[in-house]
Amino acid sequence: MSSTCTVSILGCYAAAPGAFKNPTSQVLNIRNHVFLIDCGEGTQVALRRNKIKFVRIKHIFISHLHGDHFFGLMGVISTFSLLKRTAPLTIYGPVGIKEIVLLQLKLMQNFTSYPLHFKELSSKEPELVYEDDAVTVTTIPLQHRIYANGYYFQEKEGDRKLDINAVLNLNIDKAYFNKIKQGGDVTLEDGTIVPNSELTFDPPKPKSYAYCSDTRYKPVIADQIQNATALYHESTFLDSHEHLCKPTGHSTAKQAASIAKQANVENLILGHYSTRYNDLEAFREEAETIYPNVHLADDGKVFTF
Amino acid sequence: MSSTCTVSILGCYAAAPGAFKNPTSQVLNIRNHVFLIDCGEGTQVALRRNKIKFVRIKHIFISHLHGDHFFGLMGVISTFSLLKRTAPLTIYGPVGIKEIVLLQLKLMQNFTSYPLHFKELSSKEPELVYEDDAVTVTTIPLQHRIYANGYYFQEKEGDRKLDINAVLNLNIDKAYFNKIKQGGDVTLEDGTIVPNSELTFDPPKPKSYAYCSDTRYKPVIADQIQNATALYHESTFLDSHEHLCKPTGHSTAKQAASIAKQANVENLILGHYSTRYNDLEAFREEAETIYPNVHLADDGKVFTF
Repeated sequence: MSSTCTVSILGCYAAAPGAFKNPTSQVLNIRNHVFLIDCGEGTQVALRRNKIKFVRIKHIFISHLHGDHFFGLMGVISTFSLLKRTAPLTIYGPVGIKEIVLLQLKLMQNFTSYPLHFKELSSKEPELVYEDDAVTVTTIPLQHRIYANGYYFQEKEGDRKLDINAVLNLNIDKAYFNKIKQGGDVTLEDGTIVPNSELTFDPPKPKSYAYCSDTRYKPVIADQIQNATALYHESTFLDSHEHLCKPTGHSTAKQAASIAKQANVENLILGHYSTRYNDLEAFREEAETIYPNVHLADDGKVFTF
Repeated sequence: MSSTCTVSILGCYAAAPGAFKNPTSQVLNIRNHVFLIDCGEGTQVALRRNKIKFVRIKHIFISHLHGDHFFGLMGVISTFSLLKRTAPLTIYGPVGIKEIVLLQLKLMQNFTSYPLHFKELSSKEPELVYEDDAVTVTTIPLQHRIYANGYYFQEKEGDRKLDINAVLNLNIDKAYFNKIKQGGDVTLEDGTIVPNSELTFDPPKPKSYAYCSDTRYKPVIADQIQNATALYHESTFLDSHEHLCKPTGHSTAKQAASIAKQANVENLILGHYSTRYNDLEAFREEAETIYPNVHLADDGKVFTF
């Protein structure tokens, strides 16, 4: 069954945190999984302010090893221990993340109260890093100054929905319901075969969320995330600063919109704004010249799909 | 010349940061030196909010390797680079601090724009770690769950103050003034020796600031910091939780006051409160049963001595 999916923006500004501008972190709630994506300095405080229950976070996905995306990770890991957490936690991120965490835990003489696992990444191709009955997570290789991945969170297609009236009318026994929901036809006692299409409705379209930060304009991303429900794509710059994209490894709002259009996504969320800009509306206006359904991330905002 | 000395509290709460309670960090301004002491998560944001100029910080003193005292260090180091700092920065802290910082800088592929020095500490005796014409800094060995030092910041005694009327009355040439300020007597042309005490006033009493966090009650600290202008001493607990001091390596407000009294300091600042307490006044009341001049640290407060 498809359910509501929410993205809570804890921080969405590039580089050093400002007095009131948080570096990157966000929480995706999809099929009752609470995934923490990136973890800039101050993330644990932002989690508290946004009333997100620490214990529900079981997986943290780090895009790359620049400080504005991971300096809050040690604080989160330590505070989970202070709270006497017992549930396992898995960190996904570039090779090196494990050494950074374990070195500090060792020197702090302060190991975690819960099992801490790492899935270190080094592939330049998309890689399935998480899967369960309801959801998969695949890396989206990005092009930044250092090794970086976005993450593509996808609901699995749910079971077909039973047409209760149809099965009752045909006196079909409950024992067959699971088989029917999984797409099976039914043979009645008189030998008649009732095709599945007369017993069920299509399941809701699975939802999906693509997180892409930080990256240069990389059109191949669009191939991987075709028809996603929502794409968060960094837009550090406006087109007027496009010349800064190559040396810094970032994108403009226009380029983000171009990816959204090529991928035919339903929603585009812009973020990772350079703090040089005061007016975020300029990002929306620029992106809307290419693609219509543009949302602006901002600290504390929650998007529901 | 002695000048005003200020202590700006950026954060003074124990353990995990709360939504509006910062972990430990403070800025000491003494003889125009701006020393950053400890560096919990969020310190760089607190520096901005307190309008402290980053470029004036040339020395950072870390007491020990628990997260609430150093998780903000990488953010400060990185942001200094983003601001294209060129002035050298020196970090003082337990052995291991250098490895923690350099590992992360290496993996970030992002070396500093300025010379970064480390003075790693491992001695269990007081150690002079910084000295210039005006100020010395000496470690104060503490007793915590892991290796920890406080720091004792002391102004050097300044030159004696010239009694302008006296030297003019005696027609003493300006060429002798420096010698007189340094304590020398003067021989007049007729052979009379004028003792220094008739030509100068005593210099102002040098100021000193002792920072002690985190530590169990350790009376020998009082011997080292006799007559300090101000002592910041942790008071994680009230006396009602005194039984928690030994296992956690912390002190009560009463114990902090006892150190202040034994050291005959002029001012005691309490801080590093456990977040279990809502009313900080209870810390003051408890300490004042032992020692009279008690101040309560709180985030954003500035103390002037």
